[in-house]
Amino acid sequence: MTTLHPDTPTIETREEVMFFDTDCGGVVHNIAYLRMIETARTRLAAKLGMALSEMAQTQLYPVVVRTEIDYRKPAKLADELIIHGHLEKVERARFWCAFEVRRAADSHLLITCRQALALVQMPQGKPVRLPPDWSTRYAHLTGPQ
Amino acid sequence: MTTLHPDTPTIETREEVMFFDTDCGGVVHNIAYLRMIETARTRLAAKLGMALSEMAQTQLYPVVVRTEIDYRKPAKLADELIIHGHLEKVERARFWCAFEVRRAADSHLLITCRQALALVQMPQGKPVRLPPDWSTRYAHLTGPQ
Amino acid sequence: MTTLHPDTPTIETREEVMFFDTDCGGVVHNIAYLRMIETARTRLAAKLGMALSEMAQTQLYPVVVRTEIDYRKPAKLADELIIHGHLEKVERARFWCAFEVRRAADSHLLITCRQALALVQMPQGKPVRLPPDWSTRYAHLTGPQ
Amino acid sequence: MTTLHPDTPTIETREEVMFFDTDCGGVVHNIAYLRMIETARTRLAAKLGMALSEMAQTQLYPVVVRTEIDYRKPAKLADELIIHGHLEKVERARFWCAFEVRRAADSHLLITCRQALALVQMPQGKPVRLPPDWSTRYAHLTGPQ
Repeated sequence: MTTLHPDTPTIETREEVMFFDTDCGGVVHNIAYLRMIETARTRLAAKLGMALSEMAQTQLYPVVVRTEIDYRKPAKLADELIIHGHLEKVERARFWCAFEVRRAADSHLLITCRQALALVQMPQGKPVRLPPDWSTRYAHLTGPQ
Repeated sequence: MTTLHPDTPTIETREEVMFFDTDCGGVVHNIAYLRMIETARTRLAAKLGMALSEMAQTQLYPVVVRTEIDYRKPAKLADELIIHGHLEKVERARFWCAFEVRRAADSHLLITCRQALALVQMPQGKPVRLPPDWSTRYAHLTGPQ
Repeated sequence: MTTLHPDTPTIETREEVMFFDTDCGGVVHNIAYLRMIETARTRLAAKLGMALSEMAQTQLYPVVVRTEIDYRKPAKLADELIIHGHLEKVERARFWCAFEVRRAADSHLLITCRQALALVQMPQGKPVRLPPDWSTRYAHLTGPQ
Repeated sequence: MTTLHPDTPTIETREEVMFFDTDCGGVVHNIAYLRMIETARTRLAAKLGMALSEMAQTQLYPVVVRTEIDYRKPAKLADELIIHGHLEKVERARFWCAFEVRRAADSHLLITCRQALALVQMPQGKPVRLPPDWSTRYAHLTGPQ
């Protein structure tokens, strides 16, 4: 992962590959990584001020509006995986998070993923603007890219 | 499956085993069958008068309170599976459904499963008695067993 | 969906939204669509000559190497969804499939998705070139795009 | 949980309820608990000498042959859950594990579960007797119950 600006929110989570993560090809199923990334993303969102425990009350949810994921190398049963995530870009109504999944044993890069999220007020499903202080807190992540 | 009383509600669904159903042991993962059984159970519940499309409005849900499942023989990628389900027993506040999963190609019995369900009014989570006419409609399924 | 060349392989599958597809935001969870798309993709691959029932023997698998998915509108419990897929582009060592998910009731476009796949010989994990006749069979889908 | 014999293998794992664990009823979906229990069971099996990392080589797998699960109280988004598991009973060709899921915040018992497992040699699918030393190591868990 390239060096990040010191004000960039980051997260690191770990997962051990279980049977339910694999398929009969002998490797981790492509969909299983997205569950692992959701766990990392949820903890990253908590660092951004969006705690899971408050969402049930406020019903203001960060909703995935786009996922891009590249499968570079396969993981296998019992592999320990390290998921690194960081806030990548802040727009007016959505923000991007970037993730890497590496195998702990050899640090090989297995997966890269970017996700765009919008804040949505449920149950109406109405998009909400990002908190105004984000443009100053994460000034280095705004602007055209 | 033993012969059922003609008034017993029954259901039949089919599934083709996909990669996401399997694990690296080369066979269908034990949890995947419960997803297939949920699809059968949902269609059986619709026959009992509990349509999925109404639940979103009424928020009256049939909730699984107990599952018993026996894994007898494994299924593999590309197997076509037939799920048979029927209403097995009606109690005051809950009802039991029974399921069998067989491989279409050889009719081998792979899975047997029983599930007890209760009617629950969300979001309070309050249990609700079964519709009073069930005791007459399914009289042959009530009483001590 | 734009009009497709008549020689383009296509697929249509249908899914009814079950409880296991949804989350507590009240809508279909973002990962659930990828399971639906896998079912459509598997049936599309069968049309391309890659039958699921043969993969267990040959261990030659079409493996997802990239997914791009856009979440445009949410689906809800009991919605009937129609998934349209087609072969979009053929390269030397990988091919792209494109998918749309629409709600049957109002034809609203909910999801668009593109996936790149490579043929991989397991258990070695060795990439294999696409069948040579694809460049003629799908000549209209090759070349720079 | 009743007091266990000091030689009984036990495990404790923790999970935070994520969106992918919940459904539109607003609570954790019944199938999601089985994934959490699989993680606990896998770590318990490692304590019994069945390490996940060796299974890929030996292809000797502990396979679930029966699950009984009771859903007592619902969990919600952001709940921290504690899963306790222990070896419950040892038979000639299979062993039983028992699990409890509690909410960390109030210690309420949400789920009880028992699973019977057999050792199976893949890819033949041949059942294998349990290691002979289990009858002495876990003497207090054998015999009629």
